[in-house]
Amino acid sequence: MASIFSRIVNGEIPCYRVAEDDKHLAFLDINPIAEGHTLVIPKCEIDYIFDLDSQQLSELTLFAQRVAKAIDKSINCKRVGVAVLGMEVPHCHIHLVPLNTEKDLVLSNPKLNITKEKMAAIAEAINLNFK
Amino acid sequence: MASIFSRIVNGEIPCYRVAEDDKHLAFLDINPIAEGHTLVIPKCEIDYIFDLDSQQLSELTLFAQRVAKAIDKSINCKRVGVAVLGMEVPHCHIHLVPLNTEKDLVLSNPKLNITKEKMAAIAEAINLNFK
Repeated sequence: MASIFSRIVNGEIPCYRVAEDDKHLAFLDINPIAEGHTLVIPKCEIDYIFDLDSQQLSELTLFAQRVAKAIDKSINCKRVGVAVLGMEVPHCHIHLVPLNTEKDLVLSNPKLNITKEKMAAIAEAINLNFK
Repeated sequence: MASIFSRIVNGEIPCYRVAEDDKHLAFLDINPIAEGHTLVIPKCEIDYIFDLDSQQLSELTLFAQRVAKAIDKSINCKRVGVAVLGMEVPHCHIHLVPLNTEKDLVLSNPKLNITKEKMAAIAEAINLNFK
């Protein structure tokens, strides 16, 4: 069965889309620990990030960098933190989390309750800064 | 003043060295949250990881992948998690943390008290699997 992320890639499940190219997709985490908390995935369904080949990993990382720069410009934060756990969904994904303190990168932190309208506005703001 | 990590690179401060090439260094975190918790840094002193240029970021990531694969072979864990916060030391660094559950990637978790001998043995074991 396709992973939930492949179903998002295929448009079967909606998402707050932040950025996309032919091989990658970035969208807001539906259970954000910060405003602008974004997931970056390769469209190919590979579970463990370190099983990506060198080219795939390099391309994913550079795509994530472009997304992080767009988040930096869009969200009030000191910088964008990175976390990859890989145990929740069997499709590798990079968490990009706007940080103001180190404690902001705890993925088990309480989830924010952000309205649909606000989530859409955040995604659009980041997308406008994506280059 | 040179960052503490540049002083490690220069050999002024000792470390439990895991892997090295001309541009990168990997060494055990001196305050580990898991056995095999490793820091990967570029030798150049750049604070924010997303300020690295594309080539630097790509090379750092691929070096970290080689280290992660060596950790996978050396440490009893399900996979290696990734975290980049970047607020502790103004020299960018990737935390590679052996994970068995998602909760293992909380960098504020209690630090393990591992003997010097055990730290040296862990570093050597990972180094032997580094390719």
